[in-house]
Amino acid sequence: MTTRPRILVTNDDGIYAEGLAALRDALAEVGAVTVVAPERPRSASGHAITLHKPLRIETVRIPWGGEGCAVNGTPSDCVVLGIFAIMGGRCDVVVSGINLGPNLGEDLTYSGTVSAAMEGAICGKPAIAVSVADYERPDYGPAARFTARLVARVLAEGLPRDTLLNVNVPNLPEAEILGVEITRQGKRRYEGRVERRQDPRGRDYYWLGGEIIEDIAGAGSDGDAIMQGKISITPLHLDLTSHAFAKTLKGWALR
Amino acid sequence: MTTRPRILVTNDDGIYAEGLAALRDALAEVGAVTVVAPERPRSASGHAITLHKPLRIETVRIPWGGEGCAVNGTPSDCVVLGIFAIMGGRCDVVVSGINLGPNLGEDLTYSGTVSAAMEGAICGKPAIAVSVADYERPDYGPAARFTARLVARVLAEGLPRDTLLNVNVPNLPEAEILGVEITRQGKRRYEGRVERRQDPRGRDYYWLGGEIIEDIAGAGSDGDAIMQGKISITPLHLDLTSHAFAKTLKGWALR
Repeated sequence: MTTRPRILVTNDDGIYAEGLAALRDALAEVGAVTVVAPERPRSASGHAITLHKPLRIETVRIPWGGEGCAVNGTPSDCVVLGIFAIMGGRCDVVVSGINLGPNLGEDLTYSGTVSAAMEGAICGKPAIAVSVADYERPDYGPAARFTARLVARVLAEGLPRDTLLNVNVPNLPEAEILGVEITRQGKRRYEGRVERRQDPRGRDYYWLGGEIIEDIAGAGSDGDAIMQGKISITPLHLDLTSHAFAKTLKGWALR
Repeated sequence: MTTRPRILVTNDDGIYAEGLAALRDALAEVGAVTVVAPERPRSASGHAITLHKPLRIETVRIPWGGEGCAVNGTPSDCVVLGIFAIMGGRCDVVVSGINLGPNLGEDLTYSGTVSAAMEGAICGKPAIAVSVADYERPDYGPAARFTARLVARVLAEGLPRDTLLNVNVPNLPEAEILGVEITRQGKRRYEGRVERRQDPRGRDYYWLGGEIIEDIAGAGSDGDAIMQGKISITPLHLDLTSHAFAKTLKGWALR
């Protein structure tokens, strides 16, 4: 008798997000799914981990069906608790998503979705982050079904240690998706990152944000694949070292 | 008449931290310093940015002397507000620290200190994160004085776009520091990442953390330099792509 693969599903849009349920349902075809997600949306939470307060795990009913574990913490917290406190370390793959909106270029350093997958990799598990590249009317079906096929493949082939996959799926019907491209992380530039307003009492306050002014995608980048209607898979690792600049820096002979 | 370099100083230990004031005082020899830091400690906040609530900037007195801008947000928020709302875009270098405790290996992906420098790089500025590798009785003096020399050099030479420096300084008197090493990001492994306890009402709660069981430093890594009593400078970039694994992944011919 073979045991089914054990899959931890999490996200950063929170336990009640539709994308999480769509992912869970598709992955139920591949293995036994455990859902552990933040009790509320934690978008743009980056790779934060909660060290200064105790965490709680609560089993909740999910409006899209079934139950899951809600955690009063970040996506990374959910991964650590999921693997070690809930699954007893017996986890074969971590899948994070399906995020509402793309995670491309430098944006992925802010992304709770990608950070959850990074945490999976740090915990020694193969890990995948999945996003639908649309904020308005996402259809999670194509992304969920593709991820199920990808997870089955990752379970069969494995991933190198400290490596994760960042998947972005265009918001198109399956028949209109023009294939899968293995990409590199692209670059984006923003403008007007800060907007100043005044409250009714005349005090300033600020909103962060900014419009993308340039998708410096270039051939082979994640953003370029999405613009072409393809699924983008960027393999990521945890080593941020700029080996290129290290050589120059050695020449500075700092003291 | 030459203008003095404009330096933005921030951190993740909060505006009242001693390490922030030590850094500011040392950098005052190099240029005009603007201090913008979180109103409270934001350690392990990762590269989070605040998109869902308005931010406030308040000028506060710093107990170590002088004034600074306190922000109700993350270190990354402080960098964006500092550069664009407070300095009007006229910022020559972003320096984050001095952090209480090391930022080595995979830990730097959680680090608010390093994330603030990443945000500086995303905003197109040279950026440096500085940490003292000790939690107990840090002496910020050697790290502050070294950083002042490093910042002067960075202002003279520049850094490549999208590149930042992660500096860790051993907690030793200057005479005992055995030089400067240009390093790569190392690896650390933890054990016992989750501790379960029961509250007085018998409900479970959890603390995250865990002891470092292995500093898989190896020659040339950040952790190895610190263990040898050297200052570690790791050049980092924002591109997380694992180009090595991309080749294998292309061979999977995914659909």
